Amino acid sequence: MKFIPLVVILSLFATHASATWEALPETAPFPADNPTTAEKVELGKMLFFDPRFSATGTVSCFTCHNVMEGGDDHRSVSIGVHGVAGGRNAPTVWNAAFLSSQFWDGRAATLEEQAVGPVTNPIEMGMKSLDHALGRIQGIPGYKQYFDGAFGAGDNVTMENAAKAIAAYERTLITPNSPYDQYVNGDKSALSAEAISGMETFEAVGCMSCHSGATFSGPAMPAGAGFFVKFPMFVGGEDLEKFDLLADVGRFESTGNEADTNVWRVPTLRNLKFTAPYLHNGAVKSLDDAVTVMAKAQLNRDLDAEQVADIVAFLDSLTGEFPTQTMPRLPATPGDLLD
Amino acid sequence: MKFIPLVVILSLFATHASATWEALPETAPFPADNPTTAEKVELGKMLFFDPRFSATGTVSCFTCHNVMEGGDDHRSVSIGVHGVAGGRNAPTVWNAAFLSSQFWDGRAATLEEQAVGPVTNPIEMGMKSLDHALGRIQGIPGYKQYFDGAFGAGDNVTMENAAKAIAAYERTLITPNSPYDQYVNGDKSALSAEAISGMETFEAVGCMSCHSGATFSGPAMPAGAGFFVKFPMFVGGEDLEKFDLLADVGRFESTGNEADTNVWRVPTLRNLKFTAPYLHNGAVKSLDDAVTVMAKAQLNRDLDAEQVADIVAFLDSLTGEFPTQTMPRLPATPGDLLD
Repeated sequence: MKFIPLVVILSLFATHASATWEALPETAPFPADNPTTAEKVELGKMLFFDPRFSATGTVSCFTCHNVMEGGDDHRSVSIGVHGVAGGRNAPTVWNAAFLSSQFWDGRAATLEEQAVGPVTNPIEMGMKSLDHALGRIQGIPGYKQYFDGAFGAGDNVTMENAAKAIAAYERTLITPNSPYDQYVNGDKSALSAEAISGMETFEAVGCMSCHSGATFSGPAMPAGAGFFVKFPMFVGGEDLEKFDLLADVGRFESTGNEADTNVWRVPTLRNLKFTAPYLHNGAVKSLDDAVTVMAKAQLNRDLDAEQVADIVAFLDSLTGEFPTQTMPRLPATPGDLLD
Repeated sequence: MKFIPLVVILSLFATHASATWEALPETAPFPADNPTTAEKVELGKMLFFDPRFSATGTVSCFTCHNVMEGGDDHRSVSIGVHGVAGGRNAPTVWNAAFLSSQFWDGRAATLEEQAVGPVTNPIEMGMKSLDHALGRIQGIPGYKQYFDGAFGAGDNVTMENAAKAIAAYERTLITPNSPYDQYVNGDKSALSAEAISGMETFEAVGCMSCHSGATFSGPAMPAGAGFFVKFPMFVGGEDLEKFDLLADVGRFESTGNEADTNVWRVPTLRNLKFTAPYLHNGAVKSLDDAVTVMAKAQLNRDLDAEQVADIVAFLDSLTGEFPTQTMPRLPATPGDLLD
């Protein structure tokens, strides 16, 4: 077995060693320059569901971040315009508002910054440029009144405002009140004995070194700081190699920093029941396997079947309440919009 | 100019020559073997929005029938799995419940029959077979309770029931109370003078020979009968040729009957503001052009600019009220579902 040294950032763990169990807040923080308002949320939901800002008019944020299910797309890796598959598993948009960086490699500091990334990615939404995408938004006259409502009258149909609106909508995508949250908030009957046992095992074996905090994605940190960990730390063995965990170099791809090789943002563990398949490449099909693989790859531990079952029962208890959402009404399309 | 003789079916017109102006009903009829129930509608909405029954897990009914907008996909022709474009413009699903046949060529008698068509179309949803698609539905355990609720306990997760549920949902997609409907129901202030003038011109020049009834898609007929018309009847001239109106042989493609060459189901005129571009091939970008082209191709009339503007004002008055819909919650995906 080959050993990959801990990255420096892991020294952070020392300050978070005492486990605290946090319930998910019912509202998300927002940046000072983009307070969440009902008007922005409404506009943002429209834009989130609107496929007209992709090259073919077929791919929206919703396409890969299906908020009617787990906020991802239930594929190993996503497919964008032109039917071409990307390289990574779509991260869930549910509770992303609580994360201190966005994308698997944390290359976007905020939801606002993330929102514009896929628009010009050639295999995601495939627009030639952000100006081209903006032209599409401006080419739909019905949007103007919603930009006015969200940002005040004026020259407000900008990509920056579109991103702000989408981020504002995404900050409403929160799944509180899971059995785990009820338990943490005092209802000791909310978890099964198996889930409680899993919770204890989860802490005892070291999962919380990385998966801490209300979203189990690491400690609260300023936007953009991100909480990054090398994965896999320990490699080798049939089980690990078959999932091809080293092929994607992770954060190195965006930073070019050697120390970021195979370094990833720690993902949330909430609502995992709805986000199979798992890991950055979507190579692991079941939650049982995901728990086994993670324990081996990060903690160099071989969990027994009971430990795995208990942890999975605990993880199942992190499935929260998905808010009822109304569908947006999108403004009409001029017939030459996609020309 | 080349003249194409009227098809026999046009003799039907004699019985519908006196124009009657009908408001859109607020509920749709249903077949005796598929009464609309709340449970079926709920299940049908889930299935309608679920992309997991397509080859790549990316295309649902919603993809080409965007009920957040005009019930179509604002493209000339649709794009399905693998990014390949089809041959025809997506017809709107709004008010399709009132039509006596489905698809541009009317090859499906009912919404139930239509619903399963795209599933195995290689460039739409691209499933190998309906059994394969059914396997996907059966492979999502969370659906079972909804089939039980809609169809009673038992061996009910069948493609027939899935189609019934989708059709039941589609029967709720009705846009009543347009300005035109208000006018017909007695509110004479609901239409502008221009729209009223357009309504008169619409009747006077002969548009209602085909576009009659509450949906302006022809007279009420039994399911499957369909109301079909040759299009174009008159061909020739620059304006018509540039839209390539003869290339698609229409109903002949599905019936193999020579008399069905370039014969089409008469489409609804409701909510046209939301369904650009127009015609079976989506070649006409603006409603002004669509009116001009249709008058020339079907009535051999050259409308002047005022007539066109008036008719467009009338057609705009056919935009109804789109009901507020809640988003469905889709059951969780097993990680190996798409294997």
